[in-house]
Amino acid sequence: MRTIELSDRQEKIIEIVKESGPITGEKIADRLNLTRATLRPDLAILTMAGFLDARPRVGYFYTGKSSTQLLSESVNKIKVNEYKSIPVVVNENVSIYDAIVTMFLEDVGTLFVVDDKSLLVGVLSRKDCLRASIGKQELNSVPVHIIMTRMPNITTCKSDDLLIDVAEKLIEKQIDSIPIVKEKEEGLEVIGRVTKSNITKAFVTLFKKD
Amino acid sequence: MRTIELSDRQEKIIEIVKESGPITGEKIADRLNLTRATLRPDLAILTMAGFLDARPRVGYFYTGKSSTQLLSESVNKIKVNEYKSIPVVVNENVSIYDAIVTMFLEDVGTLFVVDDKSLLVGVLSRKDCLRASIGKQELNSVPVHIIMTRMPNITTCKSDDLLIDVAEKLIEKQIDSIPIVKEKEEGLEVIGRVTKSNITKAFVTLFKKD
Repeated sequence: MRTIELSDRQEKIIEIVKESGPITGEKIADRLNLTRATLRPDLAILTMAGFLDARPRVGYFYTGKSSTQLLSESVNKIKVNEYKSIPVVVNENVSIYDAIVTMFLEDVGTLFVVDDKSLLVGVLSRKDCLRASIGKQELNSVPVHIIMTRMPNITTCKSDDLLIDVAEKLIEKQIDSIPIVKEKEEGLEVIGRVTKSNITKAFVTLFKKD
Repeated sequence: MRTIELSDRQEKIIEIVKESGPITGEKIADRLNLTRATLRPDLAILTMAGFLDARPRVGYFYTGKSSTQLLSESVNKIKVNEYKSIPVVVNENVSIYDAIVTMFLEDVGTLFVVDDKSLLVGVLSRKDCLRASIGKQELNSVPVHIIMTRMPNITTCKSDDLLIDVAEKLIEKQIDSIPIVKEKEEGLEVIGRVTKSNITKAFVTLFKKD
């Protein structure tokens, strides 16, 4: 995909054809107080670029391609792998208190919980920990598997999933972090994590001008 | 800004000019085993679209405009106002416990703290609350102003700031939420909030195909 910048006149032509198409080249020229000959290069580029289509004896009509539609094509090819982070995991038997300490030490808002075979069994968020800490849970003795969200209620993704699809899952499920997993014979191994921070970073990296 | 899709042949021409430019139309035609006449419409559209430039007696050269550069122009015009959320505020004298309850009731990860005149004095994150709740703070009696991040150490933005700039601030400052403020005579009034969720939603809304 490539992008071009249209001239003001070309933008005006698109507007006219959007409103009044199908419309002949002559009528477009009339509306702009120009000759048909003057407009010829503009109409040629708009047709070749795919904004307009022309039918003999009918005139020009608008194809409906918007820049946002076409622009999304390139963003829709980015894999989650390009913007992932390292996952932070804890064993299901560690105490809530130790898990909270791990969150602070590693500076993450979500921990992935694994069993003794290092397979994913749950997800623990800062919100889960805060709820437990203002409740009546004994933080030092209760293991994380009591308060975590557990399989199969966990949203996961694979490293070749599209970034845009994972971003949509984060929004739909109202979660902060999704583990990137690899299927093993006995379950899922956690190999990465994608958070709203990763999506925000991708947004800045892709679009921020220097 | 508008986008177009170039044909394979047009992409090839760009590659040749990138590598070997400045190069005459005839030489490009030679490289593609085509006649100059066949190439004329392609060279015309590439020049009009701004990918190539032509100088008499010199030939065609590549202008260096990439699709990503041009693409970022439209994203760089979006204001933060288009993707903001409603702010949730608490008075600086409420207890940490009550603030945590507000976080759960309103389902937000960050509260903005205001004084009796409703002016911004601090920010309270889920992380601040979690730290306090595993520490020795008496959650029911300690007011939030003791543990909040306070002015002037707060990152704020205005409603006509660019979304991309606010996204960059979220990443740079490693924070989850930024208040949108309005300047008053005596201080700042909070009129909105922007979080990594808002940026993720913007990313999905802008680029997700149906």
